[in-house]
Amino acid sequence: MAEPITFYFDFYSPYGYLASRRIDELAAKHGREVDWRPFLLGPAFAATGHRPLLDTPLMGDYAARDFARSARLQGVRFKLPAEFPKAALAPARAFYWLLDQNRQTAQALAHAVYRATFGEGRDGTRAELVADLAEPLGVPHAELLAAIQRPEIKQRLKDETRAALERGVFGSPFIFVDDEPFWGNDRLDQVDRWLQSGGW
Amino acid sequence: MAEPITFYFDFYSPYGYLASRRIDELAAKHGREVDWRPFLLGPAFAATGHRPLLDTPLMGDYAARDFARSARLQGVRFKLPAEFPKAALAPARAFYWLLDQNRQTAQALAHAVYRATFGEGRDGTRAELVADLAEPLGVPHAELLAAIQRPEIKQRLKDETRAALERGVFGSPFIFVDDEPFWGNDRLDQVDRWLQSGGW
Repeated sequence: MAEPITFYFDFYSPYGYLASRRIDELAAKHGREVDWRPFLLGPAFAATGHRPLLDTPLMGDYAARDFARSARLQGVRFKLPAEFPKAALAPARAFYWLLDQNRQTAQALAHAVYRATFGEGRDGTRAELVADLAEPLGVPHAELLAAIQRPEIKQRLKDETRAALERGVFGSPFIFVDDEPFWGNDRLDQVDRWLQSGGW
Repeated sequence: MAEPITFYFDFYSPYGYLASRRIDELAAKHGREVDWRPFLLGPAFAATGHRPLLDTPLMGDYAARDFARSARLQGVRFKLPAEFPKAALAPARAFYWLLDQNRQTAQALAHAVYRATFGEGRDGTRAELVADLAEPLGVPHAELLAAIQRPEIKQRLKDETRAALERGVFGSPFIFVDDEPFWGNDRLDQVDRWLQSGGW
């Protein structure tokens, strides 16, 4: 089987959410798995000098409209959380803690957090909510809450974020097909085509 | 006939060039004309706090790769000029000077400037080159060079740029279908769909 494609995303990225709803199926169509890699956009913004979309003059109004329009086009429910953007530390730390135990559980949690955050507009940065969403996946509530406070888990997210930036990631979603980079939910059709043809 | 769609672009925008190669045909398919509106990205960057793509850390490398990759996908010749980016004052002033005389000549000049700049990698900001490209369209060389130095033509470009920003334009290309905004060459398929269906 060919190498997995890599899916970098921030848990508080609406376009990351939209891409998350297509990426597994798209990869499977071409016999690929998806290596999900949450990171934090904050350090990427520090590197590029950009601000979160909604805080950027002119772009903010467009982005708010485009989040909803893109979701409608994709047939996906969308509701922006009341407080947006925020640093999504808890779900990303929980993800990496779970990843080393069971990759499928980690990815299932990522889907659940994204659905709660952008499908229902809930505050997906809250550790309590993340633990609630993980419980039906067989993850003990108290264990998750304790794990994401551990220094090595906090450090893991920092390391993953640094590694993403070193690989050239500056936005969410950001996808690598082998070494070919694609930025943005609106590039998924190109990802599909690249997987099909091996380039153009 | 329905209202024309509006096509905002900067003459030194590679994605503007790529969109320029599709926009007329795309609009015609739906019985629409295209109102071409060059503006200057500089004031838009001042408003958003962004820098030109190639000058932005991390994004620059991606953009350079993506310009060429997008052109290949579209089957369009692409060569970045040696000096890039630059403020493309001369072609934008010449465009508006011509627009009031003959819209088709103005649009033909826009195509010629874009082809020279990004199809051949020539310096499309040079007034002499713009005048050379306009000559086969029936525009006297010296007349164009004189026109783009006139205060009212300079002011016209400033006014058009200000009007674009007031309408919410912050990047190139930027397209309005009636009042619906679309940013980016990679949104042309959505423009096509919107023209077809009147929204979604």
